[in-house]
Amino acid sequence: MIELRPLTQPPNQADLLLTHEAIQPFIHRTPIMRCESLDEMAGCHLHFKCENFQKIGAFKMRGAASAALRFGPEEIKAGLATHSSGNHAQAVARAARTLGVPAYIVMPHDAPKVKIAAVQGYGAQISFCNNTPEERQAALNDVVAATGAAFIHPFNDFGVVAGQATAGIELIRDTKTTLDYILAPVGGGGLLAGTALAARYFSLQATVWGAEPENVDDAHRSLQTGRIEANVDNRTVADGLRTNLGERTFQIIQKRVPKILLVSEQEIIEATRLIWERMKIIIEPSCAVPFAAVLRYREAFANKHVGIILTGGNVDVTALPF
Amino acid sequence: MIELRPLTQPPNQADLLLTHEAIQPFIHRTPIMRCESLDEMAGCHLHFKCENFQKIGAFKMRGAASAALRFGPEEIKAGLATHSSGNHAQAVARAARTLGVPAYIVMPHDAPKVKIAAVQGYGAQISFCNNTPEERQAALNDVVAATGAAFIHPFNDFGVVAGQATAGIELIRDTKTTLDYILAPVGGGGLLAGTALAARYFSLQATVWGAEPENVDDAHRSLQTGRIEANVDNRTVADGLRTNLGERTFQIIQKRVPKILLVSEQEIIEATRLIWERMKIIIEPSCAVPFAAVLRYREAFANKHVGIILTGGNVDVTALPF
Repeated sequence: MIELRPLTQPPNQADLLLTHEAIQPFIHRTPIMRCESLDEMAGCHLHFKCENFQKIGAFKMRGAASAALRFGPEEIKAGLATHSSGNHAQAVARAARTLGVPAYIVMPHDAPKVKIAAVQGYGAQISFCNNTPEERQAALNDVVAATGAAFIHPFNDFGVVAGQATAGIELIRDTKTTLDYILAPVGGGGLLAGTALAARYFSLQATVWGAEPENVDDAHRSLQTGRIEANVDNRTVADGLRTNLGERTFQIIQKRVPKILLVSEQEIIEATRLIWERMKIIIEPSCAVPFAAVLRYREAFANKHVGIILTGGNVDVTALPF
Repeated sequence: MIELRPLTQPPNQADLLLTHEAIQPFIHRTPIMRCESLDEMAGCHLHFKCENFQKIGAFKMRGAASAALRFGPEEIKAGLATHSSGNHAQAVARAARTLGVPAYIVMPHDAPKVKIAAVQGYGAQISFCNNTPEERQAALNDVVAATGAAFIHPFNDFGVVAGQATAGIELIRDTKTTLDYILAPVGGGGLLAGTALAARYFSLQATVWGAEPENVDDAHRSLQTGRIEANVDNRTVADGLRTNLGERTFQIIQKRVPKILLVSEQEIIEATRLIWERMKIIIEPSCAVPFAAVLRYREAFANKHVGIILTGGNVDVTALPF
């Protein structure tokens, strides 16, 4: 395994290239898919980066691997730890298995059974807690104190951001034309920050915009006020996007992402169904948010080449929103 | 457009190559997908040919194009016609649009609204009839008499078989290793017959087996008795496989397909769900039948390379069997 240097600043171009090289054993090179009927509907040229086909079913594999490889072998001998009810938990569990060290995951009692089973399937040890930020953090502190495992934050970590950036690098390299826009959904901001850096260092001209549900518009408001805003409510079908930004991701997004587009719950559900029906692929509602934004703000994208990162496909297919 | 010669005998190697060349403007070259977790589960190496990503969402595009190109320009000037409640209707409608001629489709009153809308979306004219074989045929005869359109049978046509064979040719060519088995579902037998011919002419060693629901096991029984058997019941979740064989498809299958594997309804539903969840792609229950057979008869496939044709992805995502 290649070791990467710890990052105390946003990753630069060399960091991103080294990261992409180092995480190769952990990731698939996912395809770019196109769809004539969605292009017609949107009035532009869409290029979908299919991270739903990534290992563990989501781009989170990239960031977890990138962060894990920044620890020295001694530092992770006791294992990797995190708190997450979603894809980051699976990513850390799988990274630990690949590295041959234990994984300790704090999950809320009410996490979906299918996600608990997936994390267990990678051989991780799960500690359950109540589903509040305070109790999650307390449970994680206990696990780290008891095991000596190394903590990997889901997004507020420059190592994680460097890993998430590699999806954008591949999108830019594998698209046969020059992209005008790249859109990514925004929750904690790891992917959006990484995508902005990928465009900064590897694209000739692509502008990166975020897309977010109206119901959890914290990132949109944060760009307006210039400080990290919190969501008062977290009711959205895009369950991966409920989180607020972190200071490290906000620092990058504030500098490099000029706009975050908002869409309604109904628009997210409709966009999810369209991608399922027309592209025949399974995606999480969270990653239909950028496509929903293209449909809503179509005049901004008319005839442009637009890259969209489809972030993941871990859906309970027995409980769909349509 | 390249014109193809009419076929009164099963297509030979040259026919298949010419067909593949001629239908290029009508088809996508669909990808082969692999999945580590399904390989582990099945104990063999699976190579999935993703015809769910084909134009109109199913392999039927290939056969309809191949058959349409065997008519002279004068013969199709008045249009193309068929009866179908499913993918063949869309395929004929789209082939006609590409060729710039009208399409006349006979569909049962109770066909799914989403399929009716898709056929209309390709600009075809629909005649509705009651859902019995006799009434469908009578309605079709009326349409052909009134319009002079050229009829394309859904499967019992060597031109259609030649088109369906091209999915197998691509599977054999694009798989990076030598396949031991190729499995296809069997309804009317167009795909299975075509796949058997593709293996005969383009594979070093692949054996082709069919796979069929126990509830509609007509092809399995036909191989045993040596004549075309009919289904007494047609209750199966694999709605594309309810049809009986035709004399032309049976002639090829009897000669070249040694075995047809049977699976239960529960096994089909479970296999569909596994492909959705693990591969993150949307497939029709009909094309989960071969994968269900691999899981049921796993000892036959142990450590082998097995090609599976995923035939289509036109599913009503608001009415799933799980």
